[in-house]
Amino acid sequence: MVYLKDNFLLKNKTAERLYNEYAKNMPIFDYHCHLPEKQILENEQFNDVYEIWLKGDHYKWRLMRNYGIDEEFITGGKSNKEKFVAYCTVLATAFGNPLYHWSQVELKEFFNCEIEINGDNAEIIWDWCNEYIKLNKITPQSLIESSNVTHLFTTNEVFDDLSTFEKIKQKNYKFKVIPAFRADKIMNVEAKDYLQTISKLSALTGKIENLTDLESAVENRLNEFIKVGTTACDIALQRVCPLTEKEQADEVLKKALKGEEISLEQAEIFKGYFTYFLFKLYAKYDLSTELHIGAMRNNNTKMFNKLGLDTGYDSIAEDNSIKLMSRLFDKLDSENSLPKTIIFNLNPKQNSEIMTLLGCFQDSSARGKIQYGPAWWFLDNKVGMEKHLQDLTATGHIATFVGMLTDSRSLLSYPRHHYFRRILCSYLGTLMEDGEITQDIELVGKVVKDISYNNSIKYFKM
Amino acid sequence: MVYLKDNFLLKNKTAERLYNEYAKNMPIFDYHCHLPEKQILENEQFNDVYEIWLKGDHYKWRLMRNYGIDEEFITGGKSNKEKFVAYCTVLATAFGNPLYHWSQVELKEFFNCEIEINGDNAEIIWDWCNEYIKLNKITPQSLIESSNVTHLFTTNEVFDDLSTFEKIKQKNYKFKVIPAFRADKIMNVEAKDYLQTISKLSALTGKIENLTDLESAVENRLNEFIKVGTTACDIALQRVCPLTEKEQADEVLKKALKGEEISLEQAEIFKGYFTYFLFKLYAKYDLSTELHIGAMRNNNTKMFNKLGLDTGYDSIAEDNSIKLMSRLFDKLDSENSLPKTIIFNLNPKQNSEIMTLLGCFQDSSARGKIQYGPAWWFLDNKVGMEKHLQDLTATGHIATFVGMLTDSRSLLSYPRHHYFRRILCSYLGTLMEDGEITQDIELVGKVVKDISYNNSIKYFKM
Amino acid sequence: MVYLKDNFLLKNKTAERLYNEYAKNMPIFDYHCHLPEKQILENEQFNDVYEIWLKGDHYKWRLMRNYGIDEEFITGGKSNKEKFVAYCTVLATAFGNPLYHWSQVELKEFFNCEIEINGDNAEIIWDWCNEYIKLNKITPQSLIESSNVTHLFTTNEVFDDLSTFEKIKQKNYKFKVIPAFRADKIMNVEAKDYLQTISKLSALTGKIENLTDLESAVENRLNEFIKVGTTACDIALQRVCPLTEKEQADEVLKKALKGEEISLEQAEIFKGYFTYFLFKLYAKYDLSTELHIGAMRNNNTKMFNKLGLDTGYDSIAEDNSIKLMSRLFDKLDSENSLPKTIIFNLNPKQNSEIMTLLGCFQDSSARGKIQYGPAWWFLDNKVGMEKHLQDLTATGHIATFVGMLTDSRSLLSYPRHHYFRRILCSYLGTLMEDGEITQDIELVGKVVKDISYNNSIKYFKM
Repeated sequence: MVYLKDNFLLKNKTAERLYNEYAKNMPIFDYHCHLPEKQILENEQFNDVYEIWLKGDHYKWRLMRNYGIDEEFITGGKSNKEKFVAYCTVLATAFGNPLYHWSQVELKEFFNCEIEINGDNAEIIWDWCNEYIKLNKITPQSLIESSNVTHLFTTNEVFDDLSTFEKIKQKNYKFKVIPAFRADKIMNVEAKDYLQTISKLSALTGKIENLTDLESAVENRLNEFIKVGTTACDIALQRVCPLTEKEQADEVLKKALKGEEISLEQAEIFKGYFTYFLFKLYAKYDLSTELHIGAMRNNNTKMFNKLGLDTGYDSIAEDNSIKLMSRLFDKLDSENSLPKTIIFNLNPKQNSEIMTLLGCFQDSSARGKIQYGPAWWFLDNKVGMEKHLQDLTATGHIATFVGMLTDSRSLLSYPRHHYFRRILCSYLGTLMEDGEITQDIELVGKVVKDISYNNSIKYFKM
Repeated sequence: MVYLKDNFLLKNKTAERLYNEYAKNMPIFDYHCHLPEKQILENEQFNDVYEIWLKGDHYKWRLMRNYGIDEEFITGGKSNKEKFVAYCTVLATAFGNPLYHWSQVELKEFFNCEIEINGDNAEIIWDWCNEYIKLNKITPQSLIESSNVTHLFTTNEVFDDLSTFEKIKQKNYKFKVIPAFRADKIMNVEAKDYLQTISKLSALTGKIENLTDLESAVENRLNEFIKVGTTACDIALQRVCPLTEKEQADEVLKKALKGEEISLEQAEIFKGYFTYFLFKLYAKYDLSTELHIGAMRNNNTKMFNKLGLDTGYDSIAEDNSIKLMSRLFDKLDSENSLPKTIIFNLNPKQNSEIMTLLGCFQDSSARGKIQYGPAWWFLDNKVGMEKHLQDLTATGHIATFVGMLTDSRSLLSYPRHHYFRRILCSYLGTLMEDGEITQDIELVGKVVKDISYNNSIKYFKM
Repeated sequence: MVYLKDNFLLKNKTAERLYNEYAKNMPIFDYHCHLPEKQILENEQFNDVYEIWLKGDHYKWRLMRNYGIDEEFITGGKSNKEKFVAYCTVLATAFGNPLYHWSQVELKEFFNCEIEINGDNAEIIWDWCNEYIKLNKITPQSLIESSNVTHLFTTNEVFDDLSTFEKIKQKNYKFKVIPAFRADKIMNVEAKDYLQTISKLSALTGKIENLTDLESAVENRLNEFIKVGTTACDIALQRVCPLTEKEQADEVLKKALKGEEISLEQAEIFKGYFTYFLFKLYAKYDLSTELHIGAMRNNNTKMFNKLGLDTGYDSIAEDNSIKLMSRLFDKLDSENSLPKTIIFNLNPKQNSEIMTLLGCFQDSSARGKIQYGPAWWFLDNKVGMEKHLQDLTATGHIATFVGMLTDSRSLLSYPRHHYFRRILCSYLGTLMEDGEITQDIELVGKVVKDISYNNSIKYFKM
């Protein structure tokens, strides 16, 4: 029998009450994920548990590589079943790794399977889950609806086809699918395929010969996004770049449009201005900005050439750019153009620097206007979430927190919301039992409900 | 009824014994605060709880801004009572934030008020406290004396009028008020009002036309401070600057004295030398130096222009300057001119770097000569204090620690000393109950008493 | 009676079972230490407890300096007994410092002495231990054998005389002594005595007039090391240097060989290439590389001139060089020349950066090919080890971990392996009791045994 009990992660009776009475039944608003909207629209039944559970999941791939599994069993030519068995073998002793919990919870929640994951049990689990998929006709829709999701934001490039979202609306799903606007490809002026990116955009918006054209094109597309419901925008940077002038950025862009190679220094000049432009644009339309910083991407060139982007070869960046973030926010704020912003920081050493900085740019235009985003990606685990709550509460206000997201490509990742809620309830329940906060469980429970769902609904104007 | 119990923060029976038998009754020596000595001298009765509890307290302002409270209710035109009610509403759910504890403890300790702080109770608390203030004639003196304070160090600029301290001596208070010497305004050569600063100094000490004049003037003033009892000096820097030569610094100073604008680079040149000069001067007179590093100040220009300095717009700096600190201390030590020094570091990511560095400059001239100062400002909370104790003990010697301070502008902040003592006793009591240290409670209790009071008394030669 | 109990550091019954049934009796493989092989060969009986316990132990010296003990009692002219008494006095209240535990455990394990260490008991302990040494004829061999050590790696310079290892083999000790290959002195081209270093090497390998000669000489010596059993190599750097070309490095080397002074910049150029060369060489012979980073050495020049290297004046460096580490590993990996590598990082703020980076360079050539080394030097304490386990498990795979080492110059340091095992068992036992991992104690116990011993035996091909 599997180790998972009803009180999983809930340290005491008060924590259990908080979870069961206040958190458990709250719906889910997943305000940042990487699900392909096409998959949700097409809604095809899955063939086997590998397809849902392992395929494309680079978190799981990394764990297998750490254990010394041959790439053939990860992204290579082995069969789905062989890969599945290899993963189960690796997972059996991955104590402390979040996948150890997530994988087991996913089997329980989505396949009603309570067999402990290990090499010996792998075949039985394989058969059980595949049987279950057939019997219950598991599709994207069924997975999302059974997870009690009311809204989810996909992440879309500026030139993405928005008609998919219109078509999803007609399907009468019990949840809404809305695109978040992401201009990162437009920002990455140094990319080999930048001209193709620009072509895709200009095909929709007309000629782009300079920065003013580009800005209009982006705003044009943003308006299209807003028509299908967008209230959130997304920016990902390894570090915040120094502020630059439009003229400087224009020069770099023109070089890129001529097909010239752009150096890292030139790219930074462009990004320094363009980040500022995007923030200002998002403020104009009162959209929430999700700023992701701190990832060093594609460390392994050999594997990048073999497998491409997002295959498990990123890491946490060491860069310091909090001073630059201060300067950017200060300029925007002085121009009354700082939008609601959530900072997703991947490097825990900077938690306190960022937490205290964002406290300098709060105002009454929103409750918790500048948010310190949840423990994310590599930090999305028990220790990371506990540290996040500690750092958040020590210098911020917990009751304004917009809570959890999945940031995932997997339809099975919604239990992470409940994983977070259990940790939240355990944190607050322990404070109550230790006599460190009010004994009024209704008041604490309201905070739990707000963080679980209500705050993000309000923050993103749903 | 409020959640606060007698065993607040004390995790077990041994912790309770340590606190009640060894810590509770020790007096307080507050060796670093920002109380205005004039207020202590004038000793006027307060009008309402807002004046004592909220006015000028930027910690509380930040929390309100985080919650989205309009600035009118913070520093704006709303009435004292409206501001008070707004703060109580915000505080009700600020779980984990140190203000949540401090505010409640302050009401209990100073106003005998055990009503839980929240929006519903705000009016009752307002009335209760104001009644209490009138009935008990609450003044600065009464607040300090009821806190069992024996000594407190204010922080004073080199040109401050020292006669106030002489006058306070005549008042027969039960506590001593002594100025710590702070030359930061002299150091900040890039400041717009630098010439005015120099004028104030030269009005007391004679013409200042070059660095040698300035050095004499500072030493002259230091001697005046020593006459009124000063044994501590204070330096605050965002980061330690590279060591420079006197000639280079002299050049920068001369430019400044001519009224020329000083660039950040030039300012760093001046500070590189002048920091060294000050340390050397303090060593000459065997004074303890309190070095504060790691704050990035005035992030929000719009609000700075509106409200000025110290209004809640500072944050934790990301700068690395530990190598430079090593070079500075090494030079001073090699010249036998490194004074007793307490390093107050605001960035927890550097705890270990600094803790291990200061271990390289200890000697037998004092027990715990180079101190790692307590969890301070943004770190002055339960998690921050626990981490401080862990980092301090892991590579240093706990029994030499000079303990807590308030660093506060508020007369209500002395309970923070007891907040710290509870955490200290809980830490040591847990080690005892877990069988990780001696079971000799007398020995552990002696360490508690030393850290609570005796060590700082000795360190500052009171 | 001393506070140490059988369940020391074991938080619950499951932790006790894991330790007693799986960890306690596993032998020790100490894969990185600084014991002088000569001392092991000569195997002379000790004269007093000072000689074994305090002499040359700069961890203990630092603690004494922190407490304000005069250097005469540390490295100066006082008698062995006076120094011993001073240390006992200091230790009595060093709560939380790892020496507090280690020292007491060492007395218990090696001298059967269960008297609590403090100033009052110092004389009794002195007599007890010295008596014990005489009665039991304590020698290096007896200490190592009674610790159940099967293998230990010393750290040796490329020019060290390897015949000692041959002679040790003939002694029929119950343990093997094998040199790890360390080319740091060859790397440190800026050192005052670099020409002497090169002379020592060329005396063994022939003329060295350029980089190609040097490379051959190093490879030549490495082959000699391999003949006596070497499977590990060692590199220590404050930070990883930027990659450079052989030609650039050759130029710097030639300057050095002419006796010219080498600047820090030039030294970095040399190291940038030479680090790459060494890794590549170690990969060629399938040796494990132990890369140590993050120490800032010899902070105190005055004491360096008095006492020399390794006397307690090092600290944790602030340098960021994870991006450079990424570039180095990427180049090596793309040339299929990245050897098995253990990264020993001294700065805990970089744990997550490094942990996630090394996950980008794993492959099936070894289980846990790139290792995050154990909590080390300043981090070798309870809090440091707990944090290490948390960080390791959050983004890596615990079951592949090669476990603990002593990194010590002291023959009494083997109990640190058991100290670590207790913390490991407490960590896993708590996960089991909290229902966060499998209840299958055999499975968890196997992981404990592997981390305690089996993994390192396999990793280093013993």
